[in-house]
Amino acid sequence: LTQITATSVTIGDEILIGQITDTNSQWIASEFGKLGVTVEMMLSISDTENAIQSVVKNQTTDLLVLTGGLGPTKDDITKHTLAKFFNTPLVVHQETLQRLTTYYAARKRSLNELNETQAQVPQNCIVLKNDFGTAPGMWFQENEKVIVSLPGVPLEMKKLMGIQVIPKLRSYFSTPYIYHKTLHTIGIAESDLAIKIKDWENGLPKAVKLAYLPSLGMVRLRLSLQSSNRETAENLVQPLLVELKKLINHYVYGEDGDLIEQVVGELLLKKNKTLATAESCTGGNIGQLITSIAGSSQYFNGGLISYSNEVKIKSLHVPSDVIDKYGAVSEQTVSFMSTNVCELLHSDYGIAVSGIAGPGGGTDIKPVGTVWLALSSEKGTITKKLVLTPHREKNIRLASIYALDLLRKQLLKS
Amino acid sequence: LTQITATSVTIGDEILIGQITDTNSQWIASEFGKLGVTVEMMLSISDTENAIQSVVKNQTTDLLVLTGGLGPTKDDITKHTLAKFFNTPLVVHQETLQRLTTYYAARKRSLNELNETQAQVPQNCIVLKNDFGTAPGMWFQENEKVIVSLPGVPLEMKKLMGIQVIPKLRSYFSTPYIYHKTLHTIGIAESDLAIKIKDWENGLPKAVKLAYLPSLGMVRLRLSLQSSNRETAENLVQPLLVELKKLINHYVYGEDGDLIEQVVGELLLKKNKTLATAESCTGGNIGQLITSIAGSSQYFNGGLISYSNEVKIKSLHVPSDVIDKYGAVSEQTVSFMSTNVCELLHSDYGIAVSGIAGPGGGTDIKPVGTVWLALSSEKGTITKKLVLTPHREKNIRLASIYALDLLRKQLLKS
Repeated sequence: LTQITATSVTIGDEILIGQITDTNSQWIASEFGKLGVTVEMMLSISDTENAIQSVVKNQTTDLLVLTGGLGPTKDDITKHTLAKFFNTPLVVHQETLQRLTTYYAARKRSLNELNETQAQVPQNCIVLKNDFGTAPGMWFQENEKVIVSLPGVPLEMKKLMGIQVIPKLRSYFSTPYIYHKTLHTIGIAESDLAIKIKDWENGLPKAVKLAYLPSLGMVRLRLSLQSSNRETAENLVQPLLVELKKLINHYVYGEDGDLIEQVVGELLLKKNKTLATAESCTGGNIGQLITSIAGSSQYFNGGLISYSNEVKIKSLHVPSDVIDKYGAVSEQTVSFMSTNVCELLHSDYGIAVSGIAGPGGGTDIKPVGTVWLALSSEKGTITKKLVLTPHREKNIRLASIYALDLLRKQLLKS
Repeated sequence: LTQITATSVTIGDEILIGQITDTNSQWIASEFGKLGVTVEMMLSISDTENAIQSVVKNQTTDLLVLTGGLGPTKDDITKHTLAKFFNTPLVVHQETLQRLTTYYAARKRSLNELNETQAQVPQNCIVLKNDFGTAPGMWFQENEKVIVSLPGVPLEMKKLMGIQVIPKLRSYFSTPYIYHKTLHTIGIAESDLAIKIKDWENGLPKAVKLAYLPSLGMVRLRLSLQSSNRETAENLVQPLLVELKKLINHYVYGEDGDLIEQVVGELLLKKNKTLATAESCTGGNIGQLITSIAGSSQYFNGGLISYSNEVKIKSLHVPSDVIDKYGAVSEQTVSFMSTNVCELLHSDYGIAVSGIAGPGGGTDIKPVGTVWLALSSEKGTITKKLVLTPHREKNIRLASIYALDLLRKQLLKS
């Protein structure tokens, strides 16, 4: 099988002046990777005819994906430049005109001149219908090379890629079927994970590729396999996954894009249990993560952000002599916090966090990054000490996801 | 004055496979904009000699900034490729070798062979000392063109740019002095802002450029002026700013990179006041924003996340008949929430939020995006109704920053 290559080109002055970050290229590259298409280069260029012409004239890859520059205003010139490049006129695409008329009618507006120009496309293109915005996408093929032009708005670009471009690419380039399976781990470093699965990794069939994808506190493991169809791939990968999970089951919280806050929410929902939080150094971040999931009101009662010791004592009823004796960042304090929030908010589970996020507040015995977690339920309270980083932002994020993971493990046991 | 042009090139396969987003280019472009250097193109390329050679051979701009590919491992080849391109040997840079020896000694490790190669640089470069990592930066100048090579780690890149590259660029290209002043507004749409300041904008001297930089719920206004020095620029811009602030003072919460949570924190600190929060639909996000600022324990006591009605009633003491009669999302409920959290947590100010974040839970009378805010202090309670968007994530963010802005305005009055 030959390797299909691509270049991603984002068009727009707002990128070049540093006003926004180009996130389209990363998304496209990630999707193309799953498809077996190699992105050789990413480019961000200005909304000028010269810049766009230069890119299309010097196409070195099988596929060129242009995003941006398709708006109705004067500064958007991608369409005109492509028509010029292909030496073809712009013509009104009747189906798009009809779609736009309906679109604006639904918004109680009639089409103005500017909107109408959005229905014009170079005569030689295949129109990619855009149901999520006004500008249609365009597909050009000439001399075995393909140019695709899409709107730059990430939502529209992603929808058009999924519905129109990727299916067309599959058939045009007869790309191989590539099967992917991703396991999400938490709480183990990339290098430790690599040691744990070394023998398994060395024993992988040559066709199966393994990628380590690390982020803060988490590592994703992605298995990829080029195959004729899904069933064949799954039959090969399934027993490998079983083996892999045996080795690292303790650290795997989900698959294929799962978020830890979503996995915990699903478990609570399934087991019909409720949760309350008592947060000190995370300052509300755990509550925020949990409630970022739609429908979380079904299992999340609420929580106390006990940032000051007074709130810990008066609202959370942590005995003041416990704080005096052991400190606010201690196993004893955090245990009272989780037990009491559970009871005060009539919840099945209570999680509590107290730590030194930094940059100030550290001591020799309790340096910045020292965090205590506690989890309470009718079965009692378990605690865990974390030694994190010197960085406030990282400590808040790590303490939050590790607290959620502690709850996840407990939910699996119950 | 001639325009100085630049190309930003990020090197690394992890970008091309879509594993990470290139954020270096955006940062560089934004810094160059302040310097009056125009970024004409951004490129992301692979860690291959071909790709790097092609870019340096075809340099079309005055300046080429390469980031990435300077690590000690075999896949990092930027340095070797540049030496080859300039036809110059790699030599050990003694000062860097000394720095690395000290660096590793401090970590109780001695230099291995791999680390030592990090002290090698092409003979024709000027070394840019890197105090924040191991790989030094490099500056090449030939035929009036400049190539700069920097580590790809964002923190190291930014430090080297600020300390080494930008001062050298100023003197090498004798870039003009560009004065920037940014006002941050909140709670007014870009188009409404444009109408409010239309006459003022039309009356701006030609030398002063105005840019609108919108983000969710906020718009930054940036005034730029090319000048011989800071004083001249400030003398011209100052009276313009006074006029501008008169027109939009209600919406301006800060300047030059200020965050709303930081501005509110500084005001609380200055006025020696404390804060408590009662959050329903924002689920802890306001607490999280406030405590993201180091030192927030000086003014933030804590809060209650009253996600369920039971918590609103039992922990926050909102009368159950008020919730029955007016609903949890109502002026009455949110007023009780802010008044009571203020009292319960012995704080000078209490802010409360209750709303329908979505996607579910909306009705005809209270659609998704309906949010009530309340702010209590010894002076009483003020409330505000927001009608936001159909999107959960946006509603949570908008409700949070608008609640902080309500507090900011009250703090300015007191």
